[in-house]
Amino acid sequence: MATLVVPHEVNFVEDAEGLRKAVEGWGTNEKTIISILGHRNAAQRKRIRQAYWDIYQEDLVKRLESEISGDFERAVYRWILDPEERDAVLANVALKKGSDHHVIVEIACVRSSEELLAVRRAYHARYKRSLEEDVAAHTTDDVRKLLVGLVTAFRYEGTEIDVKLAKCEAKILQDAIKDKKFNHDEVIRILTTRSKTQLLATFNHFKDSHGTSITKVLLSELHDSEFKRLVRAAIRCIGEPLKYFEKVLRNAFKRVGTDEDAVTRVIVTRAEKDLRHIAEFYRTRNNVPLDQEVDKETRGDYEKFLLALLGRKD
Amino acid sequence: MATLVVPHEVNFVEDAEGLRKAVEGWGTNEKTIISILGHRNAAQRKRIRQAYWDIYQEDLVKRLESEISGDFERAVYRWILDPEERDAVLANVALKKGSDHHVIVEIACVRSSEELLAVRRAYHARYKRSLEEDVAAHTTDDVRKLLVGLVTAFRYEGTEIDVKLAKCEAKILQDAIKDKKFNHDEVIRILTTRSKTQLLATFNHFKDSHGTSITKVLLSELHDSEFKRLVRAAIRCIGEPLKYFEKVLRNAFKRVGTDEDAVTRVIVTRAEKDLRHIAEFYRTRNNVPLDQEVDKETRGDYEKFLLALLGRKD
Repeated sequence: MATLVVPHEVNFVEDAEGLRKAVEGWGTNEKTIISILGHRNAAQRKRIRQAYWDIYQEDLVKRLESEISGDFERAVYRWILDPEERDAVLANVALKKGSDHHVIVEIACVRSSEELLAVRRAYHARYKRSLEEDVAAHTTDDVRKLLVGLVTAFRYEGTEIDVKLAKCEAKILQDAIKDKKFNHDEVIRILTTRSKTQLLATFNHFKDSHGTSITKVLLSELHDSEFKRLVRAAIRCIGEPLKYFEKVLRNAFKRVGTDEDAVTRVIVTRAEKDLRHIAEFYRTRNNVPLDQEVDKETRGDYEKFLLALLGRKD
Repeated sequence: MATLVVPHEVNFVEDAEGLRKAVEGWGTNEKTIISILGHRNAAQRKRIRQAYWDIYQEDLVKRLESEISGDFERAVYRWILDPEERDAVLANVALKKGSDHHVIVEIACVRSSEELLAVRRAYHARYKRSLEEDVAAHTTDDVRKLLVGLVTAFRYEGTEIDVKLAKCEAKILQDAIKDKKFNHDEVIRILTTRSKTQLLATFNHFKDSHGTSITKVLLSELHDSEFKRLVRAAIRCIGEPLKYFEKVLRNAFKRVGTDEDAVTRVIVTRAEKDLRHIAEFYRTRNNVPLDQEVDKETRGDYEKFLLALLGRKD
């Protein structure tokens, strides 16, 4: 369930005019920006951008970028984009940064097959290259094989489960871990091609016959490597996306100096989807409501904007 | 340019009724089937199937399958399907057969990015699995990596060329061939992720600096292997699809006992696209018109059907 609260009816021209007033002249009225954009869904934001363009022949996104700054700007910028454009930007930024490959895993494994396709289309339009092309050019060896496989997957989304196959592939994963060689090709094949439903069955068989979940076994039995961390992220994003996101937030807040990019990413990408459930997991796991944590760990307009997306009353 | 000749206006109900008469009662009227289906494009065939279903509550494709047989049946069956459904069937049959992986390469490399996506969607609907899932399950090692990479690609289709990159990647391909180790990962990365326009520039740079085309070098310098043959097929499908198809036809006719499946595949998949150009290449290269060759090498209703698709007057 979403946390975003939107009005029943929206006048897109009024919104565009309101935003214009907020960015025009001396100073910027951040409060207005938050009160409008913090309460509009993706379809509404698109219409507002269009209305703004029709009236002022100016790109609202670019104007906002030039008027606000810092974490607030990054959050508003990510939020105002269409979900697929936003994911394309998140992926591109992660590739340039080099240390954020888990963001690629997250986009590839949490989104539906059609959503991931939309991201790949948006990536073409924006960067004049394919997503897999950039992923392949920025990575090497097994990390490359895993990431390229994940972003190019177009998984079957039916609910059929092949029980025999699940048992067989749970065994392959088990053997891959046990013999320490960690047969990467087979692990990659299974994770990048099977349907999510089928993979869940495989992970469950693993747990049934091993007594421990595959992510826990991976954590304990193998030496640490980027590949292993990304495999774990993929399994968690496919198997337990809500718990995965809860942990991203937990780690982001736990760090000395909050990891604002991670906080922004989770809140912005999930506010219209399942942030309410993620927040529930957060409260259960950390004994503190997510909005209180945001309150405590962030400041100023950035904080107010996140709280708006979290559905807290102004 | 297409070879298919279709009437200006088509009455779908009349077509459906005509086909019904052709398959009903004792014996089948193959001539009617050919005169109707051999002169209808994909959109028209779809409407006829729908009209047939509406009138008789029967699947025309299944009925035809039960009424005709042999090469004629296979050709009609492939022809009557939507292009993306047909490609899904061709890919599935090739995977089951095991020795026809070049068909997978052909579908992945000749079709546009959106056409390939449509094939992947059709594969989901028909087989309840993803295309890449079946490709991965039926192949191993480098052949698997190449084929999965090709079928999952969603290539950028802009016309931009990065000249520096083309030079650099032509060099990578050259080194890969020269040191005999044939660095498969890099070859696979380049072939499966770059845009076709970019790859053409790379192949041209290779030819300019090497004096010979990459396909010729591959043919002469490396020991024969399925991987090498598939790499060559991919390069030819991307770089010179018309010449590639001419050669498929040439080899199919040259064989003792024509390879009807290959002939059917090329004629059925290209009749609405560029079969006229392929036929011109064929005439130039073999000193015989393609329809004369079909005349000579095939028989009966199968022959008449292929000639109809080749645009020869009844």
